[in-house]
Amino acid sequence: QIDSARLWGSIHETAQFGATAKGGVRRLTLSAEDKQVRDWFRKACEDAGLEVHTDALGSQFGLRKGRDMSKLPVGIGSHLDTQPTGGKYDGILGTLGALEVIRTLNDAGIETDAPICVVNWTNEEGSRFAPAMMASAAYVGDFTTDDILSRKDIDGTTVGQALDSIGYRGDKPVGFQKLGCFVELHIEQGPILEAEGKTIGVVDSGQGVLWYDGKISGFESHAGSTPMPLRRDALATLSEIVLAMEAIAKKHGPKAVGTIGEAVIANPSRNVIPGEIAFTVDCRSADGAIMDALDRDLRAATAEIAARRKVEVKLDLVWRKPPTHFDPKLIAAVENAAKTLGYSSRRITSGAGHDACNLNTKMPAAMVFVPCKDGISHNELEDATQPDCAAGTNVLMHTVLAIAGV
Amino acid sequence: QIDSARLWGSIHETAQFGATAKGGVRRLTLSAEDKQVRDWFRKACEDAGLEVHTDALGSQFGLRKGRDMSKLPVGIGSHLDTQPTGGKYDGILGTLGALEVIRTLNDAGIETDAPICVVNWTNEEGSRFAPAMMASAAYVGDFTTDDILSRKDIDGTTVGQALDSIGYRGDKPVGFQKLGCFVELHIEQGPILEAEGKTIGVVDSGQGVLWYDGKISGFESHAGSTPMPLRRDALATLSEIVLAMEAIAKKHGPKAVGTIGEAVIANPSRNVIPGEIAFTVDCRSADGAIMDALDRDLRAATAEIAARRKVEVKLDLVWRKPPTHFDPKLIAAVENAAKTLGYSSRRITSGAGHDACNLNTKMPAAMVFVPCKDGISHNELEDATQPDCAAGTNVLMHTVLAIAGV
Ligand SMILES: NC(=O)NCCC(=O)O
Ligand SMILES: NC(=O)NCCC(=O)O
Repeated sequence: QIDSARLWGSIHETAQFGATAKGGVRRLTLSAEDKQVRDWFRKACEDAGLEVHTDALGSQFGLRKGRDMSKLPVGIGSHLDTQPTGGKYDGILGTLGALEVIRTLNDAGIETDAPICVVNWTNEEGSRFAPAMMASAAYVGDFTTDDILSRKDIDGTTVGQALDSIGYRGDKPVGFQKLGCFVELHIEQGPILEAEGKTIGVVDSGQGVLWYDGKISGFESHAGSTPMPLRRDALATLSEIVLAMEAIAKKHGPKAVGTIGEAVIANPSRNVIPGEIAFTVDCRSADGAIMDALDRDLRAATAEIAARRKVEVKLDLVWRKPPTHFDPKLIAAVENAAKTLGYSSRRITSGAGHDACNLNTKMPAAMVFVPCKDGISHNELEDATQPDCAAGTNVLMHTVLAIAGV
Repeated sequence: QIDSARLWGSIHETAQFGATAKGGVRRLTLSAEDKQVRDWFRKACEDAGLEVHTDALGSQFGLRKGRDMSKLPVGIGSHLDTQPTGGKYDGILGTLGALEVIRTLNDAGIETDAPICVVNWTNEEGSRFAPAMMASAAYVGDFTTDDILSRKDIDGTTVGQALDSIGYRGDKPVGFQKLGCFVELHIEQGPILEAEGKTIGVVDSGQGVLWYDGKISGFESHAGSTPMPLRRDALATLSEIVLAMEAIAKKHGPKAVGTIGEAVIANPSRNVIPGEIAFTVDCRSADGAIMDALDRDLRAATAEIAARRKVEVKLDLVWRKPPTHFDPKLIAAVENAAKTLGYSSRRITSGAGHDACNLNTKMPAAMVFVPCKDGISHNELEDATQPDCAAGTNVLMHTVLAIAGV
């Protein structure tokens, strides 16, 4: 059994780095607050006897030796970055839970056959730089390191510049630390476990993701003197697209979601009809055929709206992550650990994307979910209980022991 | 006849202050660019022999003596501020046209009975500070000077601070310069004159304006893991409000318009359902009963949308300007001047608000419109022809001579 109080203490200690007035965390990837939590994490890993290295994209790897160093390490961990108005658990539970596993094994003097590697992946959230789960995607070869280093945030700062500004461009090439498999603990970020009174979610699959960058070019004109029929209003156009996305997702529901999270009017003024708007789209399904349908339907709706309103709408697909099907053997190991420990569990699909989804394309991977209050995440009110966090960490530890061998 | 080339030269000379790459002007009220054009204007007025004073809200008054100084001056002018992406004519034609009238009278050695006062009103546009036509509203007593001085822009800068920062908080109290009447020359900012091939618009009325500040409070949550039916999406809510505003304006059309020009998502992120949005509404009609109906319909639609989507929507009316009915005698004077000069003309309603609409509540006022290309205004592409600008200025001059007496 892990030390529930110690885990809880770590979660709440690190929540100071970017703490918001409403009890959440604002810790955008590669920000000053991210540096603070990285420094804390490195020291904690070193104190736990791990050999810590950082790769060229800033991901941190802490290695605990195994009896058989010819075996590839079992990777565990998650991320420490948050949304602009994020919570204390998303990513953090999985990273500090992994650290807690190491601390518990140390205290109990338990050695494993295979080494264990604790990982903090850079930019899982994807709100400062696109795509989400950026560093783990580069790790599995979906993007080159140089491509990722050149990605820009809204202010034009590149990933490379941001890494340098906090001193976290590591000296190890991406992929330097080979892993044999990866297990990630996370809060569910949805309402199912709580609603069904289950403690553990055994994640068997994950939704695929489509991300688009959109731009609407209408025509600025006077709000008072331009007759309604002559307008080419970019905001009215966006409004139709937002509602179309919602209707399309509902049509393919419950197995699809669609969201417009960002929309910025160029040169806004109260008495000017909006002429230009930049926006982003996020839509998802765990079913590849539905993903294709979402893309088709969104493009068709957008084209129809643009033509009818005589405005130009550009929609660029900037990221496509296919649905994930986790490794059956690892899924069984997670399920078995939950059962052995006496926790109620159920199989579940992840609505969110996770680094484990990327790793799963190149090695066996799996995930452990625990409930979060009212399914709320990407919100400062995100909450989870101490017993649930401890239960998930126990399941993680027992899964690791089963894979790594004692 | 005024000097068409000199007028044209002044318009294009001052267009350098805030010139944009696309050929427009960005000269927000009380900005550094506004200071440049104000300095230019003061000097030009002084060179034309006017006695120039600035009031406590920065409005500039240039007085040309009359034979009978017991008579109140005839006020002419407009404004020199622009929209964030505005044009070279909106307000500028009326202000520099007034200056051109003075220059022409000087050249011809014409004295008038009543004095003439050229005015540049502060913040007509209303995009940096609300409401629009701010200084002329204070002039007629709709707001106190202190109230206006405390209005803030989006960065929290007050009108008072902005005036001080460019050295244009004048030493004269608002209202120091009494006027007997006011005549304003302006581009139409709509498509009617051009479509009908008329040179002069004799403005007999102006639309009333309703301005609202709105705020939507939904709930931020994860774009991937939050099922569609559980969402309280602030942007989807705004989208329905935008389309409702459009439908309401069309329903009351052609005598109504409605626009949402500004909308800002708080803490936007690609994979977060928008939780909070601030927005503004501008709706108008020349018919007071329709204005009431617009207000009623918008509030009802908003309440229905908010209740159905389980979000909170606040809608605060921040400005209500009733419709304007200009002075019949002055309207006739404008019409007569156009006729005498041989210009085609028609009566017209102003879609935009103007300082003359404020002045009309306390003294006889009227307006002269000239066509603008494709009815485009509040856009960098705003355009008008030199002959039309000259024609309007001639009508202004002959109207002034008729009122002031030669
Ligand atoms: N787990 C999580 O919130 N990931 C962020 C990336 C995404 O799924 O949008
Ligand atoms: N004339 C003009 O564009 N005025 C700005 C105020 C408004 O009507 O919105």
